[in-house]
Amino acid sequence: MEGKSITRRSFIAGCVTGTSALISAKALARERKRPNVVLIVSDDHGLETLGCYGNPVIKTPNLDALAADGVRFTNAFCTTASCSASRSVILSGMYNHANGQYGHQHSYHHFISFPDVKSLPVLLSEAGYRTARVGKYHVAPDEVYKFDVALDGNSRSPVQMADNCRDFISGDDKPFFLYYCTSDPHRGGGVANDLPGKPDRFGNKPKGAYPGVNEVMYDPADVVVPPFLPDLPECRAELAQYYQSVSRVDQGVGRLMRVLKQAGKYDSTVVIYISDNGVAFPGAKTTLYEPGMNLPCIVRDPQQENRGIVCDALVNFADLAPTILDFAGALPETSRLQGRSFKSVLNQEHPRGWDQTYASHTFHEITMYYPMRVVRQRRYKLIWNIAHGLDYPFASDLRAASTWQATIRAQNKYYGKRSVEAYLRRPKFELYDLENDPHEVKNLADDPMHRETLAELKAKLKTFQERTKDPWILKWDYE
Amino acid sequence: MEGKSITRRSFIAGCVTGTSALISAKALARERKRPNVVLIVSDDHGLETLGCYGNPVIKTPNLDALAADGVRFTNAFCTTASCSASRSVILSGMYNHANGQYGHQHSYHHFISFPDVKSLPVLLSEAGYRTARVGKYHVAPDEVYKFDVALDGNSRSPVQMADNCRDFISGDDKPFFLYYCTSDPHRGGGVANDLPGKPDRFGNKPKGAYPGVNEVMYDPADVVVPPFLPDLPECRAELAQYYQSVSRVDQGVGRLMRVLKQAGKYDSTVVIYISDNGVAFPGAKTTLYEPGMNLPCIVRDPQQENRGIVCDALVNFADLAPTILDFAGALPETSRLQGRSFKSVLNQEHPRGWDQTYASHTFHEITMYYPMRVVRQRRYKLIWNIAHGLDYPFASDLRAASTWQATIRAQNKYYGKRSVEAYLRRPKFELYDLENDPHEVKNLADDPMHRETLAELKAKLKTFQERTKDPWILKWDYE
Repeated sequence: MEGKSITRRSFIAGCVTGTSALISAKALARERKRPNVVLIVSDDHGLETLGCYGNPVIKTPNLDALAADGVRFTNAFCTTASCSASRSVILSGMYNHANGQYGHQHSYHHFISFPDVKSLPVLLSEAGYRTARVGKYHVAPDEVYKFDVALDGNSRSPVQMADNCRDFISGDDKPFFLYYCTSDPHRGGGVANDLPGKPDRFGNKPKGAYPGVNEVMYDPADVVVPPFLPDLPECRAELAQYYQSVSRVDQGVGRLMRVLKQAGKYDSTVVIYISDNGVAFPGAKTTLYEPGMNLPCIVRDPQQENRGIVCDALVNFADLAPTILDFAGALPETSRLQGRSFKSVLNQEHPRGWDQTYASHTFHEITMYYPMRVVRQRRYKLIWNIAHGLDYPFASDLRAASTWQATIRAQNKYYGKRSVEAYLRRPKFELYDLENDPHEVKNLADDPMHRETLAELKAKLKTFQERTKDPWILKWDYE
Repeated sequence: MEGKSITRRSFIAGCVTGTSALISAKALARERKRPNVVLIVSDDHGLETLGCYGNPVIKTPNLDALAADGVRFTNAFCTTASCSASRSVILSGMYNHANGQYGHQHSYHHFISFPDVKSLPVLLSEAGYRTARVGKYHVAPDEVYKFDVALDGNSRSPVQMADNCRDFISGDDKPFFLYYCTSDPHRGGGVANDLPGKPDRFGNKPKGAYPGVNEVMYDPADVVVPPFLPDLPECRAELAQYYQSVSRVDQGVGRLMRVLKQAGKYDSTVVIYISDNGVAFPGAKTTLYEPGMNLPCIVRDPQQENRGIVCDALVNFADLAPTILDFAGALPETSRLQGRSFKSVLNQEHPRGWDQTYASHTFHEITMYYPMRVVRQRRYKLIWNIAHGLDYPFASDLRAASTWQATIRAQNKYYGKRSVEAYLRRPKFELYDLENDPHEVKNLADDPMHRETLAELKAKLKTFQERTKDPWILKWDYE
């Protein structure tokens, strides 16, 4: 043996020569089994716009293929439907009321996580992983959400981003963690004044395509208007733009899978696809209604026994970091992680003990104070609107959305299945029976028949807040 | 001349030998005239508890002497009645909606200023000042609010703090800036269960005294209950504790003046005494009613011609940094400073052009979102309660105050001159005629006779928000 500095080669040599052969072989096997992890997080991609989740129009062949070869979750939830805050939850395994990133990180919003948060890339790095990120970041401070390297790449150019990961993926033999985040299909790039309905461009170029992308265009007449949106020409025009942006993400994912295969790492890499929150329309993003929080979640584990599984476990994105650490064999026995690993359920369609989850949203923009706490079971869901005295605050881009403006201009009473009035002015508690009212329209909080359910879910919320150190727990006692 | 490294001694030598004698003499004169600055900021000290401001009971001989030898402002205001946020305004010369410190810095509140804010100590340091702080800090990040040195000292032990400044004050010949901040007379140290009314201790020791302090005790029967507080035994008991804490601050100031005199620097030092916000009782601190924002402000400029001036200029604490920089001859021609120097008014009792000021409060604790914007003229004052749909949120220590709890227990309809209902539930606009209604009880916002005044003050608020880059300006347009 060569003393302290044992290289992989010398280590194997040592094994071969018989020194501690048994232990070394085990260690080697463990090392071999530690997979790479690619975590793909798109921006504002709702569940309703993926082929594999049942949309017959949108083209997402690469994501559909991933699901067919892995597991697709039908009850995966973000814990806060706001980009920056949600990403902090994904990367910390802590609810954002506990990690300090209460809202947006950028510009004057200026929220940042506590300096003592130990994030997923840091924990993986300590476990011997190489770590890199590419594309959207939107969390702070850097010291907390620290990656070995930030790769170049326009976050609106997903194929280029994937190409830029090539060297990192090839890299050395150490396992790696790659955090690949598109800015698609977020709103952005201005309003298409040349198109009927003047939709937001959702990052689509007015002319031409992003490098390596075959832009897929959609006819507003063809898109599927989900129940939470109004079937207005303006909405269809925006959805068509949004679909195009989603298809671009899909092509980025396709290229990334190709890069993994070309590097010979596809079968040693766990790939996870999620979004940070629901689609950027009023009624979804920034709300904790189902379209805001129930999101795509596809996991392909190369070691998985059963393929094409559809799993109905209720998992949330505070569970992601523990799950990834579990894959890496680096899940600490004691830690401040607040989620729990769902690695064990990947081979099951209806695993036991995954029937309840929580969400906690406080800010989107700094001017949008609207703390909500949610317990979500299979049948019942309770939303506690802590600042129910306020009108529901609008993100600047959602208020400007032509879909919303058209609704207001027409003085429509309804926006999707919900009344505009109910959307803007919310009661303290909203209790929904999701089995009989999947669109969360009929609030049962004041229904005497549901008094016990309400009391039980309130108690669960309080316990959750205690366990996860939620500062807003004091609002039960006063105000 | 000795090249680059010109010491003061060699510089003078150069002058004496005739090299550039004229310029050098001027530079020297300017250097000699640059005063030291001591900025004393106490914690939660309201205007109503100082001898020099007319309180016949409280003992504040050192502060009274400072006022008698300087100028005392009767219309000086903090811009936000919350410790941490207010201190950020004092040290940045920017409203806290613009410097990013929207609320408390400590613990889970976790607000911090923007990294590109250029603070008072940094600007003074760049101008050649030595800078030190002692006692309470409560702003972040350190890089923004950077002092050369943080001196030791228990912030509840003001005499000791003053003694600890001795070496720094003696120091070298460079002018200095000392930021001396007590934690007195803030609430703290627990509840005195042994005393009638069970008052908070306001930092007073249950037994004994802080080093160098002759504790002044007060009889609850003797204290003056100001009009904004209820004349209850519990309130008197708390005021007696508060008075004792104020007298301790006064002794710290006395010792600090002695240290300056002993170092031979009293007559080359500008001394400023203020508090961060009003007294820590519901009705004052965290509100922008007069008791929350109208604060002591005493300035002793050794160069001042007239002494014992009482100045009625409306100044606020965003004006302080520009004023101090003006004293230091270091007021930048262009900068992000949002206040304006009031150095020029120190010799005048009724200076022209100082008839209007602004305030902006957004958070105290992170859970206490309650943005208010205020324009305050001599006669009229407009408060815009942006989140008027919410009950007025309580700071945890103010809600626990025995004065408040006694009010609630007794189901009293009034708390001071204001009804409990009006205190807790506020309208969107509050317009007061301070000449005829100094206690801000009669809201004129809906009075047709005051429609024009209301419109005029609203326009002024908007202009103020535009000028100072207030994110909450969007609330005029929606919600």
